[in-house]
Amino acid sequence: MILILKKNASEKQVEDLVNWLHESFNVQTNLVNGTHQSILGLIGDTSKIDIDRIRTRDEVEDVKRVQEPYKNTNRKFHPDDTVIEVMGRHIGGGKLNVIAGPCSVESEEQLITTAKAVKKAGATMLRGGAFKPRTSPYSFQGLGAEGIKLLIEAKQETGLPIVTEIMSLAHIDLFADVDIIQVGARNMQNFELLKELGHSKKPILLKRGLANTIEELLMSAEYISAGGNQNIILCERGIRTFETATRNTLDISAVPILKTVSHLPVAVDPSHATGIASLIEPMSLAAVAAGTDALEIEVHCNPKNAKSDGAQSLTPEQFDSVMTKIKAMAEFIGRPLEA
Amino acid sequence: MILILKKNASEKQVEDLVNWLHESFNVQTNLVNGTHQSILGLIGDTSKIDIDRIRTRDEVEDVKRVQEPYKNTNRKFHPDDTVIEVMGRHIGGGKLNVIAGPCSVESEEQLITTAKAVKKAGATMLRGGAFKPRTSPYSFQGLGAEGIKLLIEAKQETGLPIVTEIMSLAHIDLFADVDIIQVGARNMQNFELLKELGHSKKPILLKRGLANTIEELLMSAEYISAGGNQNIILCERGIRTFETATRNTLDISAVPILKTVSHLPVAVDPSHATGIASLIEPMSLAAVAAGTDALEIEVHCNPKNAKSDGAQSLTPEQFDSVMTKIKAMAEFIGRPLEA
Amino acid sequence: MILILKKNASEKQVEDLVNWLHESFNVQTNLVNGTHQSILGLIGDTSKIDIDRIRTRDEVEDVKRVQEPYKNTNRKFHPDDTVIEVMGRHIGGGKLNVIAGPCSVESEEQLITTAKAVKKAGATMLRGGAFKPRTSPYSFQGLGAEGIKLLIEAKQETGLPIVTEIMSLAHIDLFADVDIIQVGARNMQNFELLKELGHSKKPILLKRGLANTIEELLMSAEYISAGGNQNIILCERGIRTFETATRNTLDISAVPILKTVSHLPVAVDPSHATGIASLIEPMSLAAVAAGTDALEIEVHCNPKNAKSDGAQSLTPEQFDSVMTKIKAMAEFIGRPLEA
Amino acid sequence: MILILKKNASEKQVEDLVNWLHESFNVQTNLVNGTHQSILGLIGDTSKIDIDRIRTRDEVEDVKRVQEPYKNTNRKFHPDDTVIEVMGRHIGGGKLNVIAGPCSVESEEQLITTAKAVKKAGATMLRGGAFKPRTSPYSFQGLGAEGIKLLIEAKQETGLPIVTEIMSLAHIDLFADVDIIQVGARNMQNFELLKELGHSKKPILLKRGLANTIEELLMSAEYISAGGNQNIILCERGIRTFETATRNTLDISAVPILKTVSHLPVAVDPSHATGIASLIEPMSLAAVAAGTDALEIEVHCNPKNAKSDGAQSLTPEQFDSVMTKIKAMAEFIGRPLEA
Repeated sequence: MILILKKNASEKQVEDLVNWLHESFNVQTNLVNGTHQSILGLIGDTSKIDIDRIRTRDEVEDVKRVQEPYKNTNRKFHPDDTVIEVMGRHIGGGKLNVIAGPCSVESEEQLITTAKAVKKAGATMLRGGAFKPRTSPYSFQGLGAEGIKLLIEAKQETGLPIVTEIMSLAHIDLFADVDIIQVGARNMQNFELLKELGHSKKPILLKRGLANTIEELLMSAEYISAGGNQNIILCERGIRTFETATRNTLDISAVPILKTVSHLPVAVDPSHATGIASLIEPMSLAAVAAGTDALEIEVHCNPKNAKSDGAQSLTPEQFDSVMTKIKAMAEFIGRPLEA
Repeated sequence: MILILKKNASEKQVEDLVNWLHESFNVQTNLVNGTHQSILGLIGDTSKIDIDRIRTRDEVEDVKRVQEPYKNTNRKFHPDDTVIEVMGRHIGGGKLNVIAGPCSVESEEQLITTAKAVKKAGATMLRGGAFKPRTSPYSFQGLGAEGIKLLIEAKQETGLPIVTEIMSLAHIDLFADVDIIQVGARNMQNFELLKELGHSKKPILLKRGLANTIEELLMSAEYISAGGNQNIILCERGIRTFETATRNTLDISAVPILKTVSHLPVAVDPSHATGIASLIEPMSLAAVAAGTDALEIEVHCNPKNAKSDGAQSLTPEQFDSVMTKIKAMAEFIGRPLEA
Repeated sequence: MILILKKNASEKQVEDLVNWLHESFNVQTNLVNGTHQSILGLIGDTSKIDIDRIRTRDEVEDVKRVQEPYKNTNRKFHPDDTVIEVMGRHIGGGKLNVIAGPCSVESEEQLITTAKAVKKAGATMLRGGAFKPRTSPYSFQGLGAEGIKLLIEAKQETGLPIVTEIMSLAHIDLFADVDIIQVGARNMQNFELLKELGHSKKPILLKRGLANTIEELLMSAEYISAGGNQNIILCERGIRTFETATRNTLDISAVPILKTVSHLPVAVDPSHATGIASLIEPMSLAAVAAGTDALEIEVHCNPKNAKSDGAQSLTPEQFDSVMTKIKAMAEFIGRPLEA
Repeated sequence: MILILKKNASEKQVEDLVNWLHESFNVQTNLVNGTHQSILGLIGDTSKIDIDRIRTRDEVEDVKRVQEPYKNTNRKFHPDDTVIEVMGRHIGGGKLNVIAGPCSVESEEQLITTAKAVKKAGATMLRGGAFKPRTSPYSFQGLGAEGIKLLIEAKQETGLPIVTEIMSLAHIDLFADVDIIQVGARNMQNFELLKELGHSKKPILLKRGLANTIEELLMSAEYISAGGNQNIILCERGIRTFETATRNTLDISAVPILKTVSHLPVAVDPSHATGIASLIEPMSLAAVAAGTDALEIEVHCNPKNAKSDGAQSLTPEQFDSVMTKIKAMAEFIGRPLEA
């Protein structure tokens, strides 16, 4: 960490600052006197220092971080890829996983039909929303506990692990038989939820918030891992920009960056990122080409009667066709589809 | 609501669509056949229609909303300003309220000293964080229940109503003596929390999310009001943009827009918006000039030892000086400071 | 085009509006009276109507466009792909082109060495900046006319067509032997420049501005095509967002969208989009997977002495390695590298 | 400037780097060896160093700037406010200027009528577009040379100095009798234009680009000033964000920041920022409250027949009413309206 000192800071002030830094954060310092400005370098472990506490000091004009503020999720300290096992499938171990299913669980028939179809097309896991975050209180809010029961039934029917979103700690007991708990983009910085999930042993699929940086995504993962749960999948699902042609802008460059700075597996959700069914194929292929470990894709047996996000859902037939190309691409890139 | 139909939609398809719209949403339709494209206008109450369900229809190329999707919070249906009373102060009734205090409650001494100072300077309410949303799990997370106890003590000492943030439904019982419950920007779309607060009678200070539109802010307010709680204060606190000179970009134009489209009172938080203490005065004056009903300002008796957000906190002396100007501006603009 | 009328618009006002629309824009209208609001649909060619002129009418609350405001560049009116021939290479005709070379032309040796290296690795065209748009007036501004002379020399040596940026109409005569004229992101809405290039016969590589939508990119292409020049390549090169991990955010979804709504060929520049050499390989592969017709990649024979953008330049050895993968991906996706 | 070195940089490499820095940029260095990372501080004038040239060095992981990259426009080196005199009015000297007039000059009658009206209401300068940057080639492009002739006529009639936009160097001779040359947002980084205007003696009103940071605005001003022209007015006119309720988001915090870091006068354009006539009053008052030296406001004698931007134009009556409030606010804030 580097402190840029104010021009008018006296020697006495700098001395006080140095003592305070040493006492508060257990770091050594090294002073560089420049022509225009002096700087103070901090030597030691600065990853857990709260930069704002230093910014407020009278003597300090600015503070620049050198070391990343995340540690458990940082590849520098954990060079090997994290591989997460879920019912025999491995996420992050050199295979591609495809998590597919409807945006919302709507009925037994809808879910089972869709689940069987995605399994047949090659999906390795089943997704489906039981608790649904909707912008409007007047939109369908999901089946709740009943939806999770149906997901478990679909797992029994198909053998596919299930992935579904948690929206409140109050519901956590309902997730006992869920295989991967999803934290949605709107809850990426719901820190109380993250802390609690840190005490769980279940894999967490953590979605990047619409206005969150890659570093903030890693800090949210750090919340979970700080609680003891290292089974985290980081998911890029589009960020909010000025562009209105797509619902969000899929930041595919996040994939190779995350794989470089962190050891955690990475997933991409082209359905929510674009909001347009016809873009799912090209964006899925692009994400696999860029090195993603998993895809999350919305499929609905009858999109035009879907209760949510129908416009971005593929029919089973469309999904089957997209999967053929994804499989070939996965093979080509050297990260074949998980069996 | 207007549906733009696909060029190749057959007469039969359009007829089916019209029937489906009528049955599903209880609306009438009016068809306009254009040279290049036909459009279908919906007649009736469309405010609660989920636009995505219509987008998925095969015959539909695009859907454009005419009527706003919010109703309880819409001035069209409630022309008179909502005025919220809190311990004799009125928010939204032509007076300006200033909510001031530390980012985090840190100790009895810190809070009581600061509370007395802001009261003396003219603040009408006291803010202070007991539960703190922090990007890093290694930063100070707030005193929790103990912090709320100290806030209540400060209320007794000063007579100022207290405003503090809720981060989890699990804590709601601790807020019994809190006067205004704040929902932070990161929880603006924590819909489970919003639903629950809809059943409360307490005024809610709802902060705009970093990447949320004005319409989405109103939809989140709609969640609270749909549950029965109409005591909502909408708070602009900066949105995330590409600019890095300030922590966020304060969207002051949100103030007159919100006052026009909604009847709810509006607040502005220049501290979190800018992250820079020296900008609080000009941005506070600008917000009052633009018509805000309230300001929320961070003040700390000793910013350089603050455990969070010191860089954006004013000292009591600075706050006193800023308040002198705010009072004069409030008087000038015709919305004098609440007594 | 759809006009949403104000609630209080009188019959007389609507009649006047209808007459004015008919006279001003030669369109027919169709009125739909809703419960809450009336709407007026325009029938006829609305692509060239200036929407702002209608918005100002007293009777009009809002206007929504149905038809795209671009015509020459719209696939609806020109279903077949535009194929641009440059010295025997074809852009947009089912082959992939790779335009490679240094950010700036710095010297004869630097350019010729790099040009030969990129040709050997498979690049189909040579790029190099003679006139350089730099944020700072104190940074290297390019060799100007001398740089173009060196590019022509490199073309003679290697047989590669050359692509270089124009920054001012005053320089146009210098571009007589340039094969593709590039319009940089900062000049995407330099309309005087676009108009003049519309009178040229040379292919134009038009880069998307940092804050410009896909529709605005097409409108700028429309400026060029309205002047008579249909040889336009649309280039996605990253947009400005809140994310700071990359210089810009590469919007790969722009590729399939542009290919759908327009008949013009599309290029992607991963170098400027990311600003990071190690991201060029994954982003190039992703762009090819998503269907791009061309890539533009920075290569420098000695990046660490580059006078501009060294951090995002590949060495010839790195480029050779990346090209091996790009070639294989191009083959795999069915859009093989142009010979 | 601070260089963060790669962990694996050898002593020999660091020595080479130090020598290269010394020779290339004439700066001294100071090495700080940290536990995790070593850093190198540069001592000397680094304001004109091209940071990208350093980033490419193999030994360097990252570079952080301490000194601002602008010099002529930096208040640190020129503590006193720049005051620009135009026909007896002073911009930046403690008075408020209001530049008003139509978006486009459309006819003699329209311009003269509007000019007289804005003068009567208290405007201190007249604006009007002769060359118009329009997104669509099919929209009205301005009267060009004829428009400038009409502006000069309006100046003679009213005594108001005139402000109009330049779009191409080819037109510069037409601007001989223009008092302030405006550079539009889309040309803020048209560096060839900026360089040329640096050789002019005329005041330049430089508008911030839609996606440009405050620092980039100052760098563009630095281009003009580096050429010898110090008469620059910096204009905030809204930045592009995800919000669609306003055309752009007016960043009022840019006003106090620009006034702090630079000595140049600052203007605000609420008309283009919001695109909504009813927001001009509150945003003008907010901008004056925040300390702006000038406002630029669109007024049209007949907005509903305006050929451009009618929706954001005030009628003369509305402008008169807004001016009454602006005058009072200017007086109140201590920066009274220029006579």
